[in-house]
Amino acid sequence: MEINLKREAFSSTLQNINSVVDKSTSSNKPILSNFVIRTMEGEVSKVEFSSTDYELSLVEQVEAEITEPGSICVNAKKVFDIVKELQDEDVKIRSTEQLWIHITCGSSEMRLPSVEVGLYPQTVLEELPQSVTISVDDLKQCIDMTLFAAITNESRRNLMGVCLSSTSDQQTRWLSTDGHRLAQILKSVDDMNFSEDQEVIVPRKVLTEVRRVADLFGQKVVISFNERVMQFTGSRISFKTRLIEGKFPNCDPIIPKDNTKQIIVNRESFINSLRIVSSISSEKLRPVKLLISQGVLKLESEKADYGEVVDEIEIGYEGDPFQIGFNSRYLLDVLNVIESEDIKLESKNSMSPTIIKSTVDESFLSVIMPLRVEW
Amino acid sequence: MEINLKREAFSSTLQNINSVVDKSTSSNKPILSNFVIRTMEGEVSKVEFSSTDYELSLVEQVEAEITEPGSICVNAKKVFDIVKELQDEDVKIRSTEQLWIHITCGSSEMRLPSVEVGLYPQTVLEELPQSVTISVDDLKQCIDMTLFAAITNESRRNLMGVCLSSTSDQQTRWLSTDGHRLAQILKSVDDMNFSEDQEVIVPRKVLTEVRRVADLFGQKVVISFNERVMQFTGSRISFKTRLIEGKFPNCDPIIPKDNTKQIIVNRESFINSLRIVSSISSEKLRPVKLLISQGVLKLESEKADYGEVVDEIEIGYEGDPFQIGFNSRYLLDVLNVIESEDIKLESKNSMSPTIIKSTVDESFLSVIMPLRVEW
Repeated sequence: MEINLKREAFSSTLQNINSVVDKSTSSNKPILSNFVIRTMEGEVSKVEFSSTDYELSLVEQVEAEITEPGSICVNAKKVFDIVKELQDEDVKIRSTEQLWIHITCGSSEMRLPSVEVGLYPQTVLEELPQSVTISVDDLKQCIDMTLFAAITNESRRNLMGVCLSSTSDQQTRWLSTDGHRLAQILKSVDDMNFSEDQEVIVPRKVLTEVRRVADLFGQKVVISFNERVMQFTGSRISFKTRLIEGKFPNCDPIIPKDNTKQIIVNRESFINSLRIVSSISSEKLRPVKLLISQGVLKLESEKADYGEVVDEIEIGYEGDPFQIGFNSRYLLDVLNVIESEDIKLESKNSMSPTIIKSTVDESFLSVIMPLRVEW
Repeated sequence: MEINLKREAFSSTLQNINSVVDKSTSSNKPILSNFVIRTMEGEVSKVEFSSTDYELSLVEQVEAEITEPGSICVNAKKVFDIVKELQDEDVKIRSTEQLWIHITCGSSEMRLPSVEVGLYPQTVLEELPQSVTISVDDLKQCIDMTLFAAITNESRRNLMGVCLSSTSDQQTRWLSTDGHRLAQILKSVDDMNFSEDQEVIVPRKVLTEVRRVADLFGQKVVISFNERVMQFTGSRISFKTRLIEGKFPNCDPIIPKDNTKQIIVNRESFINSLRIVSSISSEKLRPVKLLISQGVLKLESEKADYGEVVDEIEIGYEGDPFQIGFNSRYLLDVLNVIESEDIKLESKNSMSPTIIKSTVDESFLSVIMPLRVEW
């Protein structure tokens, strides 16, 4: 193989590649620390970069001038570490029969060992039976509004992702929960071929990667899937991931229907107050008590030996006074992804799961379980 | 005590305070996690913040409106964590007889426990017999040009700082070494009262802190000292540090006098090439071989199983070809602090300690020991 490409394109693709490849040096599958470049039949101005960690695969097309078709498989981190130091605009990559890769850029020349391409697990993009076509901006929003509530540790594998399903009125439903809170967004899409009784659990990792490089997809993303795998396909980049096996819990009974107390709070003031009041706590989730009365929300940290903080903000609320406790971390997570100026809390009493949503957009909601506060 | 001050001034002082206080939670001197605010006799518009870890102390004056004189001693991290979240401009600090501190800012109010001020080691700034007055810009330069070559671990305590002495022509001499390299800068100062046969070893930590907040000193810094302690005094901030006990090695014999090979290299190209060539190595110090011939410097990484990199740059050199190895980390450290467009390498042969300096300024030099390169 011999190709010429632009250093900047090379370097930015390597960055994407490197998020996918297995970085654990103690990995028992050292082959996964590599990535592949291959020329494609009938294509003279593009090459394909690909990498996989078995769970998640990335395929990206990069503009290149092809002198000699072929393919190489080489260590991703090594190449990335070198390429990010290069200065000249043009890079030449050439392989020899002895599996040496030569990379030349300006006056610099490097020689790296490579691996037989045949040893590397090849990613095959498939035609999959179900699909959803969504604008990139909507996809970004759906990920941002749900991923924060998915579980990050391995304690419950079926919660380590976002559950995607379709509603009876032809919208997609994105849903996540960690047992203490849930987040749900409904989104109309351009095109949908998705049976109503189906749902799939999309792993955190692919959503994180898709979100990070979303702008490379172009305007639209085609999400296609069967019960086992899912592909995100854009104009020059595709991801393929295994789906999470198992059943996602039915969250509908958890979403309260009769929360009659409505509280309107300026989002930014609420964030500031929560940050101030929770700043004194050294616990990770930072419990806070909300004392809600007509027009005023008072926030109180735990009363502890190391001190206490209180704050107060104006709110829109007309009902009887009540108080309720939350982990401020959970409140902040959802307040940080809502975009409206004001948010709405819907509650029933001190013990009720509470809904948090935007005041202008009903498509999103989050439910947070309250905390028993005994101070 | 009751004072009002600006949040921004409070917050930036707390940041300085926090670099000095003992952050190890396992510390056997928990009192050192605190800091002190005190009003000063006859001073109605400033208060004094101070903190110490016994080795290093900071005293900073901050503008404040004093309602009731007094002093408090309170946990530095706790206050910093809270204050950095505050939004309003004005902060009130008030202490009660039960050792509670109340901090109010806008609608936020916090209550923190405090400690008897008498229990905290007080920093007393002294009149010290010797002194040097230096401009802040010169001081920054002297620190930047030498601190990188001082030792960072505890293996040789007398090298964990910069040796300050005076020369026969009334300049200050700043000198550091870690046994593999040395850095020296000579600097004329405004005013000097420093016996020629004396030298003091100034610890890394105070130099790092002084450098970090240098602009708070104003135009000039007075450095005063005896054989035990040193003070850096500016218009509103002072540091006091213990000096390092022990003798600094005599480095004069290590600075070569007969290095006749002169090589002129563009500094930026040299940095780029070193970064490229060393990027393949996973060793911390990243050995590199320089092959020097008329007009051309070729750089080579180690020839290893994981690959190799070579690069080439134009240089000014007229002598016989020779080659010499270095840890590229050491070369980069010194190239990064020199400011001139070109630098000069002065060498004798493959085994000789090599001098690196600016082509335009003779006041600074660094010496690096070569590396035996066997590839």
